[in-house]
Formats: sequence, structure tokens, C-alpha cells
Amino acid sequence: MAAEQQNEEQDVAGLMHQIGRTARQAGQELALTSSEARTAALRATADELRKRRDAIKAANARDLEEGRDKGLSRAMMDRLTLDDDRIEGMAAGVETVADLNDPVGRELNAWEQPNGLRIARVAVPLGVIGVIYESRPNVTADAAALALKAGNACILRGGSESFHSSRAILTALENGMEAGGLPRGCVQMVPTRDRAAVGEMLKMSEHIDVIVPRGGRSLIERITRESHIPLFKHLEGICHTYVDSAADADKAVALVHNAKLRRTGICGATETLLVARSRKDDLLPAILDDLHAAGCEIRGTREVMQAWPGAHEATEADWDTEYLDAILSVKVVDGVDEAMAHIRRHSSSHTEAVVTEDAWTADRFLAGVDSAIVMHNASTQFADGGEFGMGAEIGISTGRMHARGPVGVDQLTIYKYVVRGSGQVRP
Amino acid sequence: MAAEQQNEEQDVAGLMHQIGRTARQAGQELALTSSEARTAALRATADELRKRRDAIKAANARDLEEGRDKGLSRAMMDRLTLDDDRIEGMAAGVETVADLNDPVGRELNAWEQPNGLRIARVAVPLGVIGVIYESRPNVTADAAALALKAGNACILRGGSESFHSSRAILTALENGMEAGGLPRGCVQMVPTRDRAAVGEMLKMSEHIDVIVPRGGRSLIERITRESHIPLFKHLEGICHTYVDSAADADKAVALVHNAKLRRTGICGATETLLVARSRKDDLLPAILDDLHAAGCEIRGTREVMQAWPGAHEATEADWDTEYLDAILSVKVVDGVDEAMAHIRRHSSSHTEAVVTEDAWTADRFLAGVDSAIVMHNASTQFADGGEFGMGAEIGISTGRMHARGPVGVDQLTIYKYVVRGSGQVRP
Repeated sequence: MAAEQQNEEQDVAGLMHQIGRTARQAGQELALTSSEARTAALRATADELRKRRDAIKAANARDLEEGRDKGLSRAMMDRLTLDDDRIEGMAAGVETVADLNDPVGRELNAWEQPNGLRIARVAVPLGVIGVIYESRPNVTADAAALALKAGNACILRGGSESFHSSRAILTALENGMEAGGLPRGCVQMVPTRDRAAVGEMLKMSEHIDVIVPRGGRSLIERITRESHIPLFKHLEGICHTYVDSAADADKAVALVHNAKLRRTGICGATETLLVARSRKDDLLPAILDDLHAAGCEIRGTREVMQAWPGAHEATEADWDTEYLDAILSVKVVDGVDEAMAHIRRHSSSHTEAVVTEDAWTADRFLAGVDSAIVMHNASTQFADGGEFGMGAEIGISTGRMHARGPVGVDQLTIYKYVVRGSGQVRP
Repeated sequence: MAAEQQNEEQDVAGLMHQIGRTARQAGQELALTSSEARTAALRATADELRKRRDAIKAANARDLEEGRDKGLSRAMMDRLTLDDDRIEGMAAGVETVADLNDPVGRELNAWEQPNGLRIARVAVPLGVIGVIYESRPNVTADAAALALKAGNACILRGGSESFHSSRAILTALENGMEAGGLPRGCVQMVPTRDRAAVGEMLKMSEHIDVIVPRGGRSLIERITRESHIPLFKHLEGICHTYVDSAADADKAVALVHNAKLRRTGICGATETLLVARSRKDDLLPAILDDLHAAGCEIRGTREVMQAWPGAHEATEADWDTEYLDAILSVKVVDGVDEAMAHIRRHSSSHTEAVVTEDAWTADRFLAGVDSAIVMHNASTQFADGGEFGMGAEIGISTGRMHARGPVGVDQLTIYKYVVRGSGQVRP
């Protein structure tokens, strides 16, 4: 029994390394393909998704049945479900990515040295991208499309709940790649639900250049702990909106309402409101009345409770909590510097906004807050690759290496130096 | 005894985390300092290095004495030695970095969305940089200056042989930072020679954003294996020069001579020469005659030995060997495609060059070879941040994340998104 288990473990390791080698080689071939071929392959993938709609729904039915047997929550079952609309949404999403400007081959900058050497930094694909995700099967198509558009091979590891659905979507991707003349190995999926496969992926730094973990906090914490490979990830989005003494009242009410309540479950939703003390008696109650009327729970400091008696008392833990719900923690601060100090202590470095009509305060906040995204007079809910004009995003990064904020196709490239000479030798 | 050892280990872990926390906080303060303050602090550091010359030499004498007792090799002792010239070189190097354009605050790009949001990507410091190096004490000043110029805190871990010298150089850095009004904690050195400290550093992903390992292969292999933090590193430089059928003979002889022999011990030195078959009887002997006359050993395939009988026979291992010596492996290939295939199999992805007068061949090579640096009609020995106009480099990266090729001050930054609105809410 022990020997058998050991064999199986070796098999998973061997399997993963085979997948890794195939991906690396396919990535090298893919890097040499034309922009037109990659676009065509993605358009063909969209067609395949539509053509294979019934097969995808049949595979999804198997996942749903298994999910029911396992007693998945209603929310999980909903995330897992693929209907005609969602399949069409996937296909349309792949087409959107297909039509983005090609990020590969861009000349990022170029200069000439005094000795006549002409040097250019030119964008090239990152290499091999690993994507580890949970229940939503559409991530299979979304993430692969972004990786492939930028000339990267990818290794997908979906949630075990969506195993059959993801395999059916993979077939569409593989057929699309083939139709475009791209190497079939440039998109692969881990063909086992064995959790050991994830552990192997996280060690394969010779085959995988970056891993994008998409899922809940516990998945991302595990990956962060174990990975020897760089990650594009955010653990959480504890976003702040600071309403300054020089805020316009109407803007402030509308911005906080949108930042908190437009969708409470996304990482760019504001979780903490900071308000300048000079506005605690006029503007703060107006903001909180509006939120309360829309069903939002308010947790504030004593000072907030005095200004607006409907508030519950906030505990220390509230400042470090991503509610992802209609709950807001609220604090009164002296001004922009105390707001920045609070943010430095409690922010998850995702997105923070200042509401003010004063240019000096806005500049101070934008320069002094070191989050991936800083905003002036805008809703933190704009923290999104699509809203930034990137077409789509594979995730949002709060790390500091390579990419910060929304990770779109441009961020899935790196560069090489191309040096053109006429026989120069180094003295 | 065991309990004592355990205590000591806990002390190293505690010590390292204290250093990490201090660095993170100092880095956050440093990110808010002005360009002028950072420049002034580095200029003051250069002055301090000159002023403290005698103290540095006295500390160096202690290291040299310990080195003699330990029986270090002559080469090691030479690398360890600091004399007046080398101290002046360090000071001048710090001044060069001080005077570089400020990489922080550059607007990398900017655009306006249809809803009026103005979005800019603005360069900000990476954060905290760890540098792990071996015997050369001057790395202390060089690496710290680059990190600090780009607004990063740094944690230095020098070789145990240069412990006293590095401490003396650190004092100059600390005094310089203080003179410029920068937080003293922005440059710290691990105050113990205990090797466990390196292991702790490699786990501190919450305090260190990137590690730059500088040293021999075994150090870098160990760090690669253990690190959970991204690295800027190259393991080796197996660089190739391909002499095409359309090569100019004079250029080819001069370029190969320089690429191999200018300095044989640097990572950009060419280790393998590939020559098109059509030139094996005219150009190949001319190139090898020239190298041989300069004392270079030639290891070639049978075909090379037939064309130039002075060659030794190359083994398979030669194609994967970084000689760092006056030895060259040589192979005849059909043309550019076979050259590229050989490079794909054996290159360390550092630097490769093509020598040809044919534009199509040059473009094919420059597009098809996926190394950090690709060159046309230039010596691979130009693979250097200084030669690229970057002022200086903290290292050369053959990894694919964040930075490839020479890592200068620009590459020691990342960006944040600055979004300016006028009250926009997301629909």
C-alpha cells in the first residue's frame, strides 16, 4: 500500500514534469508565431466554443451532478453552472482578447550609444504561465486566451468541481490552436484531480515562469507559502476611500455609495471610509444616511457613533477585514496625513481613493499612498483591467515584482535587448 | 548544547525579521523622499568613503589577516583587497550612480478613458532589495548605491571573508544617508557571519521583494533552490557567436577575437563559436589562427578539426560549459536555423550574436533567438549595463520576470497606477 502510494506520487511528479517540458517547448515555438496566427487561433477557439456548446453543457451536467452529490453550496453550484448565455459570454470574451493590440514585438524604448550601437528593448512573451483556479470553469477560456494572445504557453489547473467542464472547454482551445497552426502543447490542463499536482506545479521553476492563483484566501495562502515561482496575486482588497475636508458633498456621497455598494463582493470595493474631522457633522451623516438607506451596516469609532448614532462600534479587527459585503468600517481622522498613516497600517495595497477639491491634498495622497492603484475623485470599483482599457485582466497583483494592479496582455510579456552594430568591439 | 544551539537559531531568525521590518519601514519612508535628498545622500556617501579611507583599510587588513590564516587562494585574496585606488573607485562609482537620472516618478505611460478618467503608470521604488554576495567588499557600496538611488531599502549579506571591510563601508553609507536626511535603516547589513542568516533571508517574502545573488555558481544554485523570493540572477553565461555565410571576414575575425578574449572571465564572453559550412575553409581557419596566436585553446567537432588541424576534439559536455577561460568550443552548422537550434539547446539565455552582412539573416536571428540580449555585428562582451548606457548594473538577469539582461536603476523600480477623475462612479 505504501509502495503503491509512492508510485502514484512519482507518477504525478513525472506527469507534471512532462507537462512542463511540453509547455516550455511549445512556448518557444509560440514565441516565433505571427500576430495573425495567434489572433486567428483565438477567433477559431471562440467558434469552437459556440460549436461545442452541447458537449460543454453535457460535461457541465456531470460536474453539477457530482456537485449535488457532494452537497456544494448554492453559491458554488451557481459559479459552476454553464448555460448558453455563459458559453456565449466566454466565446465573446475570447474574441475581445483576440482583437486586442498584439503586445509582442512592441519597441519599449530604443537609443543609440556613442559608439554607434543601436539598442532596443523589445517586448517578448513571458514564457509559460501557470493558472491555478477554483470552481468557475470559464476561467479556463479567459485565462488561456490572455496568455496565448501574449505568446505564452499555459498550464491550467482548475478546481476539481469543474473538472469535466474545463476539459470540454480545453478541447475547444486545443482545436482552436490547431486551426491557427499553433503548437497544440501551448495550452494544457492538469489531467488529474490529485492535489499533489499543485504541489508539483509550485516547484517547477524551470518550466513555469509565473503562476496566477485565482480563488479564495485559503488557496492563495497555501500557494504563497509553498511556491518557489513568482506569483501574480492579491490576497485581499482592503480598499479605503478618504473624504477630505475640501470634498464636494454631492461627489462624496455618490462616490462612497458606488465604491461600497455597486458590487460588494469584488476586490475593488471600499471596505473602510476615512473622513476628515471638519466634515464629521455635515458630510459624514449625509454619506452614512445614504448608505444606511441602501442597506449597508456601519461600524465606526466612538466619534462616528456620536456623529451618526446608527453606527455599531468597530473593533480593532474591523480595520483589517475585507467584508465583501454591505458592511463599512468608518473612522474620523485629522486630515490627509492621518488618513495616509491609517492606510499604511491597514491597507492590502490594492486600491485607495481620495475625495477632495484641493489639488495639493490630492497630489499629496496620490504620491504618498503606495498602493497598486491610487485614485482622486473616482470610485475604487474602477480597479479593473477592463475599466482601465486593457480589454481584460488575468488578475490583479498587489505584489511588487513585474506587474502591479490589473494584469493584462501587456503585463504578460517581458523584453529582450536587441543590439545592432556594424562590427563594434569592446575596448 | 542542543538547547543553546536552538536558542542561537531562534536569535538569528528574530534578528533577521527585525532587520526585515526595519527595512520595510525605511523603504516606505524612502519612497517619499525627494530626488535631491537621495542624490545628496549618495554624494555624501562618496565623501564619507574617501574620508574614512584609513578606517576602511584597517578593517580590510583584519579581513586579509584572517584570510591568510584560513589559507585563501591568491585570487580570493586579490578580490578581497582594498587599496587607495579601489576605495577611490568605489567612491567614484557611488558618485556616478548619484548623478544618474532619477528613475522614480517617471510617467511610463498615460491615457484617458472615454469616461474622462485620466490614468497614468508612474514608476515607484520596488521596495526592499536583498543582496547576497561573496568576497568582493566593494559590492557593498555599488549595490547599495543602485538600490538607494531608486528609492529602495536594502539588506546586504556579504561574504564572511570580507566581513570587517563591508562593515567599515556600511558606516560610510549610514553616515551618508544621515547627511542626506534619509532614514538610517534604509541600508542594513546582516551583523552575523552565521550561515543560517541567509536561509532566513530567503524566506522573508513579507519583508524582501527581490534578492540579487552575486557570486559563484554554488552560491546561486543554493539560493535558487531555497528561495521563496524572486531573484535577479544568472547562473552562467554560455554565450554564442554565429558567423554566417554572409559574414564580412575582417569583422568576423575581430568580433570573435574580442568576444572570446577581451576578458575571458566575464559572463558576456563568447564560449561557443558557430560557423556556417560555406565558410569553413576560408573564414574559419582565419578566425582560429588569430585566436590560437593569442593563446586560445580550440575544441571543435571532427569537421572543425579537418578544416583547422590544431583543434582538440570537443565532447558533448563542451557545449554546456562556461569556460571563463581562453578556451573556445567550435561547431560548423548548415546556416542560421541550425545555429539557432544549437543555441536553443545549449544557451544559458544570456547573450548571443550573429555576424552577417545579410539583413534577412540578421533579422531572423534577432527575432528567433530568445536570450536576454541578442546582437548583430557586435561583440558579446558589450553585454553590460555600463556599455548599454545604464550607468551601472546591480547584476544581469537571465530570468524572465520583471527584468532581463542588465539590471540598472530603472529596473529597480515598479509602477503604480494614478487615476484622476472628477467624480466618476462605475455604472
